[in-house]
Amino acid sequence: MSILVVGSIALDRVETPFAHVDEALGGAASYFSLAASLYDQVNLVGIVGSDFPQEHLDFWRSHAINLAGLQVQEGKTFRWSGRYYMDMNLRETLDTQLGVYADFHPVIPEEYRRSSLVFLANIQPELQLEVLEQIPHARLTVLDTMELWIKTERARLTEVIKRVDALLMSEEEVRQYTEQSSISSGVRHLLQLGLQFVVVKQGSYGALLFGADGTYFSAPAYPLEEVVDPTGAGDAFAGGFLGYLSTVKVGSDNRYSVEDLRRAVVHGNIIGSFVCADFSIGRLRTLTMPDITTRYKELVACSHFDPDWCASDR
Amino acid sequence: MSILVVGSIALDRVETPFAHVDEALGGAASYFSLAASLYDQVNLVGIVGSDFPQEHLDFWRSHAINLAGLQVQEGKTFRWSGRYYMDMNLRETLDTQLGVYADFHPVIPEEYRRSSLVFLANIQPELQLEVLEQIPHARLTVLDTMELWIKTERARLTEVIKRVDALLMSEEEVRQYTEQSSISSGVRHLLQLGLQFVVVKQGSYGALLFGADGTYFSAPAYPLEEVVDPTGAGDAFAGGFLGYLSTVKVGSDNRYSVEDLRRAVVHGNIIGSFVCADFSIGRLRTLTMPDITTRYKELVACSHFDPDWCASDR
Repeated sequence: MSILVVGSIALDRVETPFAHVDEALGGAASYFSLAASLYDQVNLVGIVGSDFPQEHLDFWRSHAINLAGLQVQEGKTFRWSGRYYMDMNLRETLDTQLGVYADFHPVIPEEYRRSSLVFLANIQPELQLEVLEQIPHARLTVLDTMELWIKTERARLTEVIKRVDALLMSEEEVRQYTEQSSISSGVRHLLQLGLQFVVVKQGSYGALLFGADGTYFSAPAYPLEEVVDPTGAGDAFAGGFLGYLSTVKVGSDNRYSVEDLRRAVVHGNIIGSFVCADFSIGRLRTLTMPDITTRYKELVACSHFDPDWCASDR
Repeated sequence: MSILVVGSIALDRVETPFAHVDEALGGAASYFSLAASLYDQVNLVGIVGSDFPQEHLDFWRSHAINLAGLQVQEGKTFRWSGRYYMDMNLRETLDTQLGVYADFHPVIPEEYRRSSLVFLANIQPELQLEVLEQIPHARLTVLDTMELWIKTERARLTEVIKRVDALLMSEEEVRQYTEQSSISSGVRHLLQLGLQFVVVKQGSYGALLFGADGTYFSAPAYPLEEVVDPTGAGDAFAGGFLGYLSTVKVGSDNRYSVEDLRRAVVHGNIIGSFVCADFSIGRLRTLTMPDITTRYKELVACSHFDPDWCASDR
């Protein structure tokens, strides 16, 4: 199995109430690739400028990350700068410098075309459509997006949603796109566009899974003593989610079971929680499968409760 | 067993993006009493004016709510008015008219003094201390508070925290009181004041339980298709929480087990979720124990996941 990801690669400046970092490796595809490569082979498609540090390329190559689809072009790498507040669920984008990303068009190398899972990170819907044209037979296509495209590219985004199997959205994005105050109602609108399932990311509150078949699952967040930098947590969530699914055998209908999808959401939450523990992809550098297993068990222990409340008391 | 509650009784005006209601029965003690009376006898202490509708008194009397501690005084009942936004986790208080509540001092009738559980709803810390003086031997004392007292009565509030067994706070209140960005760190500060446990209410995201013994539990929220009015959900949460505990046998150390506390938090979430389905105490009028049992089972089904992720795949 392998997982294709198409998305941004950036050099970030991030400010929190407590510290800041400059020229740090960022971008959705960076976080996703490192997270998913803990589980399986990742096929990366993206673009960087000629100023992109060699150390990051070397680092990726030392992981299960195929760079055949990485374009390196004369010019500047995409820069993003943002600030967090005391409630680190709140973020403000301070500056965006597209650089070489401005003219990016994803090209899927021949060797990537048998990728069984595809993750379309939050790039322009038009580019996401270009990717889908080039890889029409994936087992599972998962879409991410962002407020900017909901506001400026709504029609095109809707076209992409109709062509993928699953969608990851934050609660705020569900509200913006569907114009529904209730997440449940909003997700029902989304599922009616033909999606198999929708995962709603809730930041430090965990995540929800809604299936077209009526599946509903609420996954607990891993409790963090300290959040250093939440940047990339959503992309790392996606990496854990698709990474886990990539290790699972599907049934004869080529679909994942509800239990597999539940476990995948939990893995997403776990990987997302690790990312918050350091700036940039720092914590992903040292993360191991035993670390993940430990948090999985901790999440079971802190979220399950007596399935029959009557038994002992009434 | 019985549960003593001291808190506000109000007539509310509530606006949401979709509707509004006027002169509706409100106040923390109203919500708490009705919720807790589903489980056990409630002993209510509060004050209303001579304009307080007789129908509410009759309604309370038709439930397991003792009104011996309700003061009825010449003048106007406490009025509160608030507005909610599209994200109904956000609320603004528009107006507060104290009326007879301005001179309120709680008096605990003799027949209430054997109440085994005490809930101090979010009234002034000074009044909460007056209650504790009058009922020094309860098995469990639980404190609620609000932003106003954190800002204006911090020292007195700290005095109350040091004298109770448990504290209910919203996440925002934990941050305000402890000046910690991390909820876990904030709660650790609170536990160091001598509390047995802290329950952190997360609005539509559920609730967290932290024990001085290291207990940590994350309870899922019940998924609501539609939120009509979240007013009183926190007080109803407290009613479900203490109500459930009131039905439980404690050990020889006179303390609740971790499993009982977990179940109690789940009951709190369930009762809180029902309250949101209608304005004022509307949904509590018709709520039955079978309704609660159904939601309990639904919460188990939508939040538990395979405790061993390796088993089936690796």
